[in-house]
Amino acid sequence: MLFTTGQLAEQLGGTLEGASEVEINLLCAMDEAEAGGLCFLLRESFASLVPESPAAAIVVGHEYVNEPPAKAVLIRVPEPGRAFIVSLTLASMQVPEKEGIHPSAVVDPTATVGKGVYIGHGAVIEAGAAIGNFCKIYPNVYVGDGVNVGANTVLYPNVVLYRGTTVGRNCILHAGASIGADGFGFIPLPDGSRHKIPHVGGVIIGNDVEVGANSTIDRATMGFTRIGSGTKIDNLVLIAHNNQIGKDCVIAGQSGIAGSCKVGDGVVLAAQVGVADHVELADKITLTTRAGTTKDLKEVGGVFRGAPAQKVRDQLRLEAYLNRVPELNSRIDRLEKELEALRAELGS
Amino acid sequence: MLFTTGQLAEQLGGTLEGASEVEINLLCAMDEAEAGGLCFLLRESFASLVPESPAAAIVVGHEYVNEPPAKAVLIRVPEPGRAFIVSLTLASMQVPEKEGIHPSAVVDPTATVGKGVYIGHGAVIEAGAAIGNFCKIYPNVYVGDGVNVGANTVLYPNVVLYRGTTVGRNCILHAGASIGADGFGFIPLPDGSRHKIPHVGGVIIGNDVEVGANSTIDRATMGFTRIGSGTKIDNLVLIAHNNQIGKDCVIAGQSGIAGSCKVGDGVVLAAQVGVADHVELADKITLTTRAGTTKDLKEVGGVFRGAPAQKVRDQLRLEAYLNRVPELNSRIDRLEKELEALRAELGS
Amino acid sequence: MLFTTGQLAEQLGGTLEGASEVEINLLCAMDEAEAGGLCFLLRESFASLVPESPAAAIVVGHEYVNEPPAKAVLIRVPEPGRAFIVSLTLASMQVPEKEGIHPSAVVDPTATVGKGVYIGHGAVIEAGAAIGNFCKIYPNVYVGDGVNVGANTVLYPNVVLYRGTTVGRNCILHAGASIGADGFGFIPLPDGSRHKIPHVGGVIIGNDVEVGANSTIDRATMGFTRIGSGTKIDNLVLIAHNNQIGKDCVIAGQSGIAGSCKVGDGVVLAAQVGVADHVELADKITLTTRAGTTKDLKEVGGVFRGAPAQKVRDQLRLEAYLNRVPELNSRIDRLEKELEALRAELGS
Repeated sequence: MLFTTGQLAEQLGGTLEGASEVEINLLCAMDEAEAGGLCFLLRESFASLVPESPAAAIVVGHEYVNEPPAKAVLIRVPEPGRAFIVSLTLASMQVPEKEGIHPSAVVDPTATVGKGVYIGHGAVIEAGAAIGNFCKIYPNVYVGDGVNVGANTVLYPNVVLYRGTTVGRNCILHAGASIGADGFGFIPLPDGSRHKIPHVGGVIIGNDVEVGANSTIDRATMGFTRIGSGTKIDNLVLIAHNNQIGKDCVIAGQSGIAGSCKVGDGVVLAAQVGVADHVELADKITLTTRAGTTKDLKEVGGVFRGAPAQKVRDQLRLEAYLNRVPELNSRIDRLEKELEALRAELGS
Repeated sequence: MLFTTGQLAEQLGGTLEGASEVEINLLCAMDEAEAGGLCFLLRESFASLVPESPAAAIVVGHEYVNEPPAKAVLIRVPEPGRAFIVSLTLASMQVPEKEGIHPSAVVDPTATVGKGVYIGHGAVIEAGAAIGNFCKIYPNVYVGDGVNVGANTVLYPNVVLYRGTTVGRNCILHAGASIGADGFGFIPLPDGSRHKIPHVGGVIIGNDVEVGANSTIDRATMGFTRIGSGTKIDNLVLIAHNNQIGKDCVIAGQSGIAGSCKVGDGVVLAAQVGVADHVELADKITLTTRAGTTKDLKEVGGVFRGAPAQKVRDQLRLEAYLNRVPELNSRIDRLEKELEALRAELGS
Repeated sequence: MLFTTGQLAEQLGGTLEGASEVEINLLCAMDEAEAGGLCFLLRESFASLVPESPAAAIVVGHEYVNEPPAKAVLIRVPEPGRAFIVSLTLASMQVPEKEGIHPSAVVDPTATVGKGVYIGHGAVIEAGAAIGNFCKIYPNVYVGDGVNVGANTVLYPNVVLYRGTTVGRNCILHAGASIGADGFGFIPLPDGSRHKIPHVGGVIIGNDVEVGANSTIDRATMGFTRIGSGTKIDNLVLIAHNNQIGKDCVIAGQSGIAGSCKVGDGVVLAAQVGVADHVELADKITLTTRAGTTKDLKEVGGVFRGAPAQKVRDQLRLEAYLNRVPELNSRIDRLEKELEALRAELGS
């Protein structure tokens, strides 16, 4: 059980219409309601599902005036959207926390581990690493030499932090994220082979950063690749060496940022975006899905679309014209015929 | 040795032209034939390679009438393509199966493990998890709390199944696949930072599903992200939170499906496709390579191309016109000149 | 400390202007110089930073004639760019090498391990595998049955080499790289389901190859997927089954090559490129960022752009014309009006 209807109503500051001891076991969508479930009426179009819902309870706004549910307890709140997030948070807090250091974890004697830390089976904490208080380090994570991990940070299974990485507080790194692999840099030699450029820099990740599953952030050639505090990175994202990513950015799935870019604060990259190397993006710029740029974008707050990316209005206009090219072709056909006819008529 | 020519001919229901005791050690392509190899004449253009082939044996159709091979044994079958697949299957069955539970694996006392299960070194099976009969769980796999894995399923090294994931029977999850990481959802706050939306839902994967290496399937905000039975997913694919993917779909490499989409049965996404969030795709739709859609596609069985994706014929027509834009430009140049000349001639 | 100014000057064959006993602790960019740092004046535009730099030492060319630095030691060399790479190499050699076989590693008694090999915690070396001298195998790596790894090769944490993989000498495989997962091949059955094509082939990776973090290279259906010596592969790259990739290629991040392609020597794929299955690329071809091809490209050394990819000059010309489509539209508008006016004028 997650909580009873009464406990939830109290937490949400809502009023109960029905029994207070009904048990809620899971959260579910209005159109996937099931026994024991808690639903939220967030869209008017689902209001008709309320009366017959099999859910244990339904959270609605004060404005809900339809028929009361036959089975479900109603919880009225001022802001159902807010109540939804609070309920998610309450439910997530019911997950028992992992704790303790598994005997099979390998913690180097020169590493320091804060209090309340969980280190799972097979995790490796190398020499000189420092793990902050209350970190959760899941099985088979690798924390390399001298790595710093701030307090309350969670490293899910198989995360790899190469030597010299720093991760701040309250971060979440999802399974398989790789932080600090060598940047992709080579010097072409006359015989066609390539000489590896050694990468002796590191990666510094700020606080409150989330990195998605199997994303990769490479170490700098020298100095540091930096991810600003509050930045959220989705799955399968590539952040190359020496990038300087600002604070509170959002980088959606399968996007890639090539080396040595400077990305401002509050920048949003939608999914499958590409940014070429050495590009600068101003604060609060948005690149829409699949956009790509090889040029600096300097307009603070600008929204860019397409590849090459341009202001969204210009790009939409261009795309509209491109869709009309078949029609342009027809108009040219007609012009040619008409002109030909006119010339014939004039005998010229 | 995989099998002798005689054993194979019997299994294939073929007729042998040559010795029955020749040993076959590997399968190889006609143009990469080597001693001990078994080849298949699947393309007429390779028929000339048969007489001199160094292979141990060659499977041909009844219609093969060329010179017999000097060295290789000939195995005649009614359908060489079918014999190829059967031979691959026979060869793959020669790989010795992993078995037993490695002493370094950590199986929580509250987890249940079926019979004939292999659990490799360093794998972790958390509390309340259930592993079906004959599963193969390779080293360093993580099976989180309460996860269900159906019978005969194979989890290759470093697969991560987060808490609350369900995987059906006869599935294959390749190395590094991540199932159940948090969906990528945040609420923007007035100060520019973002509040994480807790994800308390799960992932349900049906039977006979294959998930490629390093692909990611995220858990639902609430309820479940679902992958229908029989669906095949390639490497480096991103399936975001709350997606409902139908049965018998094929999702090729590096494609991404953003959150809360409904994908019908038998849908095919070719490589590097992108589908925006909340999109619905009807049954049996195909999106060709690199196609992208932000809109619902409702035509059952339709084939769509381009980004924005449209019916393949319309898109090919548009692309053809776009390629002719330089020519349109020339025709406009000429029209302008001719019109100018005409007006000059007319003194108008 | 990495080295003193005197030690470095000697290694670089440079001349010292300042003390020889100053300690250098890290390398940094001119515009991120800090105490104890070593900088390189590689761009004229940073020359003004030299006099006030807080760095411990700055490497400059013989042509540097500005004011000497107030604090930093100057090291004059003939080629600062070369000195930069040499210094990176010297610094990288200061990283203490991992050594020994961790007691928790599982090495099958039938596997062979060369001298000077490091095998980290939880790594698994399966039956019949062979690890060459001086290999570094990081924690939780999986080396499958019969895998061969050449001398001096480095496998970072969580690399997975499936059964039957061969990796050459002096290779570097970054965290989470998956080598040898099954190719993505299925036979559609009449009921809409798909039958898996067993993959009994392997992967052969040459010498001096680098594979980026979380990249995937699939095994062949039969025979081998091959990566030629000297080829460098970035992060999150997908190389499908049966590909034959030449020597000294460069494949940048998030690119994908579908099955059974033949890629020549010295081919360069920039980031997010896509190559369809069964395509042949001639030697030394370059595909620029995001290019895609479903057709063979046979011009040795050709540079291709766009999707469908064509010669870069042709594609740039086409793109320029496409950007002018709105203008073409205006010209057609004007032509139509003028022709209409002319006809009105002529009463025709």
